[in-house]
Amino acid sequence: MAIVDLPALYRAYTACLNAQAWDALARFVAADVVHNGRTLGFAGYRNLIRGNYRDIQDLRFDVALVTADPPHLAARLRFDCTPKASFLGLPVNGKRVQFFEHAFYRFEGGRIAEVWSVIDKAAIESQL
Amino acid sequence: MAIVDLPALYRAYTACLNAQAWDALARFVAADVVHNGRTLGFAGYRNLIRGNYRDIQDLRFDVALVTADPPHLAARLRFDCTPKASFLGLPVNGKRVQFFEHAFYRFEGGRIAEVWSVIDKAAIESQL
Repeated sequence: MAIVDLPALYRAYTACLNAQAWDALARFVAADVVHNGRTLGFAGYRNLIRGNYRDIQDLRFDVALVTADPPHLAARLRFDCTPKASFLGLPVNGKRVQFFEHAFYRFEGGRIAEVWSVIDKAAIESQL
Repeated sequence: MAIVDLPALYRAYTACLNAQAWDALARFVAADVVHNGRTLGFAGYRNLIRGNYRDIQDLRFDVALVTADPPHLAARLRFDCTPKASFLGLPVNGKRVQFFEHAFYRFEGGRIAEVWSVIDKAAIESQL
């Protein structure tokens, strides 16, 4: 495997998400990507994240901390946003909330092949 | 700083927790440790985890994935346990539940100086 700067690659991936540059996303995500144990595939994964941006119009991935240990990378992501309706089953309904997501990624051939993600739902609940 | 094998150190730390070897814990945790933004200090941190073992008698830290990028380490922790009463505000009441915690650690001088932790509360809810 070629030497890849995973943190730089990861920041380019989040920049791609924040730009909602859906046509460029395949550069970063494998065709058979697995998310929390489910094989979503590229189209399913893109739809998942597009749906997040549709439901949360001011959504922005903000990388608070990233640790790389190839082929894995872990990211602490900060969110400060306004979900329109319900989010994670919670009645957020346009309230601005701050919370973190902790996600692990496995890269393969320079693309994200697997994601394990946990969102701090308790933090959101405490703000409602 | 001396070269430290953070994954080995981290596994020794979780073994210490699982052995409930509270007297040995100071080897792994800094005196002024910070947990999710709060300065608990060593005694406060030990009390927090002792309380978890008291409330969940079959508690066991199982390291599913660990990534090290000194001075940081991230761990995906698997739990399969039976909280006696309520846990994270949920009425678990002796039901066996499986869930993950994603935690980031910053080490300083070979000890855990800061922890950022997110527990998958939604996964527990879905099992009740």
